[in-house]
Amino acid sequence: MIDVLIEKIKEKQNPTVAGLDPKLDYIPEETVKKSFAEYGETFEGAADAIFEFNKELIDALCDIVPAVKPQSAYYEMYGIPGVTCLKRTIDYARDRGMYVILDAKRGDIGSTSEAYAVAYLGKTQIGEKRTAAFNADCLTVNPYLGTDCAQPFVKQCQNNGKAIFALVKTSNPSSGELQDLISGGKPIYEHVAALVKQWGIDNIGKYGYSQVGAVVGATYPQQAQQLRKQMPHTYFLVPGYGAQGGKAEDVAASFNGDGLGAIVNASRSIMCAYKKNGGSVGEAARAEAIRMRDDIVSVIK
Amino acid sequence: MIDVLIEKIKEKQNPTVAGLDPKLDYIPEETVKKSFAEYGETFEGAADAIFEFNKELIDALCDIVPAVKPQSAYYEMYGIPGVTCLKRTIDYARDRGMYVILDAKRGDIGSTSEAYAVAYLGKTQIGEKRTAAFNADCLTVNPYLGTDCAQPFVKQCQNNGKAIFALVKTSNPSSGELQDLISGGKPIYEHVAALVKQWGIDNIGKYGYSQVGAVVGATYPQQAQQLRKQMPHTYFLVPGYGAQGGKAEDVAASFNGDGLGAIVNASRSIMCAYKKNGGSVGEAARAEAIRMRDDIVSVIK
Repeated sequence: MIDVLIEKIKEKQNPTVAGLDPKLDYIPEETVKKSFAEYGETFEGAADAIFEFNKELIDALCDIVPAVKPQSAYYEMYGIPGVTCLKRTIDYARDRGMYVILDAKRGDIGSTSEAYAVAYLGKTQIGEKRTAAFNADCLTVNPYLGTDCAQPFVKQCQNNGKAIFALVKTSNPSSGELQDLISGGKPIYEHVAALVKQWGIDNIGKYGYSQVGAVVGATYPQQAQQLRKQMPHTYFLVPGYGAQGGKAEDVAASFNGDGLGAIVNASRSIMCAYKKNGGSVGEAARAEAIRMRDDIVSVIK
Repeated sequence: MIDVLIEKIKEKQNPTVAGLDPKLDYIPEETVKKSFAEYGETFEGAADAIFEFNKELIDALCDIVPAVKPQSAYYEMYGIPGVTCLKRTIDYARDRGMYVILDAKRGDIGSTSEAYAVAYLGKTQIGEKRTAAFNADCLTVNPYLGTDCAQPFVKQCQNNGKAIFALVKTSNPSSGELQDLISGGKPIYEHVAALVKQWGIDNIGKYGYSQVGAVVGATYPQQAQQLRKQMPHTYFLVPGYGAQGGKAEDVAASFNGDGLGAIVNASRSIMCAYKKNGGSVGEAARAEAIRMRDDIVSVIK
């Protein structure tokens, strides 16, 4: 349920999520050197450095930030050690009480979506036993294949108290090429929004929000405003704040009158705060996360 | 380049690809039992059984079928051992001379797409060294985010002689919900087709086909016919033949007059042929692959 996320947001009075998209050059040289000394300039070495970096970030943020969002691509690029590091990061963040939104943008035809849904939100059956492969709390999903792609994810959400965010209007410059095409008097992303609303309609939690959320980029505030009206019971995951150019005023439209309805992501600005402001990775990330929280909270009615 | 695939298709006179979507219940009981006896009813046990099954299929098919298409979801659901099995399957198939189309439907905003592109089609830089994480020949890509999502994949194709297939019109029942919406007098999938054509236009190989292909489901033959006309220089990856209901007549429209232009996938009908027709996994798969090849070749002009 999205309720689990909402409770963490309320408890910390902080509607933000820290992205964990750890490029090697985001990591302090001494951390990388230490890992390379132990494992060589290998995937194992890179994955070790990334995990140490993530741990420092999670330790510094876990009492003030409700959630982390690891971006799967930056782990997959380091092969098996990278994917192992992703799994360890998910487990570590959950152990520290953080909600984990895995940003992997999966989606396929029905039977294959089921395998993805089980992998990330469910438990895999082997013989008599059922074991969670990755055990995230929440997953991002690509909606291009329609309802039979989404259904298996929704089912896993229902069975296991999980949630998804489906891409509606993404934050990147070329998102409009398809998403803004007009069909029947409205843009494609509004058609997607209608589907997303439908997918979540049977499972509205106690705060009035469905377990099927929407990704709505901070870089398109007018579209966000329209979508907020169209889907009042849908939680928004809002990327694009900070390094991508979105400002607090831009994300304000994604919130509802109840002060809920959106969680705003920042990745680079938090992970690399130490480069700009000095101090340790953890101290600088914490200070930037507090600044961001206050910036976002100041624009919520 | 798509040329590598085309040469394998020409050499084997066979425009088909064997899907490797290995559910545990597709695998003979004795194979599974043996793996469980060695590794327990664990992800390791499941991954071992899957790899043994894949090996038998690859060995039986490699001299008559040009390519395999592992479906990433069915490996990811077995956690790290599953992803390790995927990597071993890619390596094993390439060692046996097969072209590997990894069906992972990745896609994200530009900088993240770059990480996916490097992971699957390129080499990851660590210190002074560059190492391939997964080293597929080709990857399926989801186009919902537009050109800046596709560009990094195209770049890796150019740099490393690889190819991609972008989803245009998928084979599943609900594919029309978004893909068939009409905008400016034509369906969304034709808008996507126009983008896909554009992405590949600067890299047409010696057989007249671009390195950016399109996924076009066998279950929608009329749409395939229209797309074939719209994008004569685009190779089609055609899922949906066999178990999903597509017949040879249905895939005929995806080929060009040169006998090229499409590669047709079947997964379950080949992997599970031994259940229907008896014999060993390998023998039955080989017989079914030959039947399928002849069925498809008979409809190509």
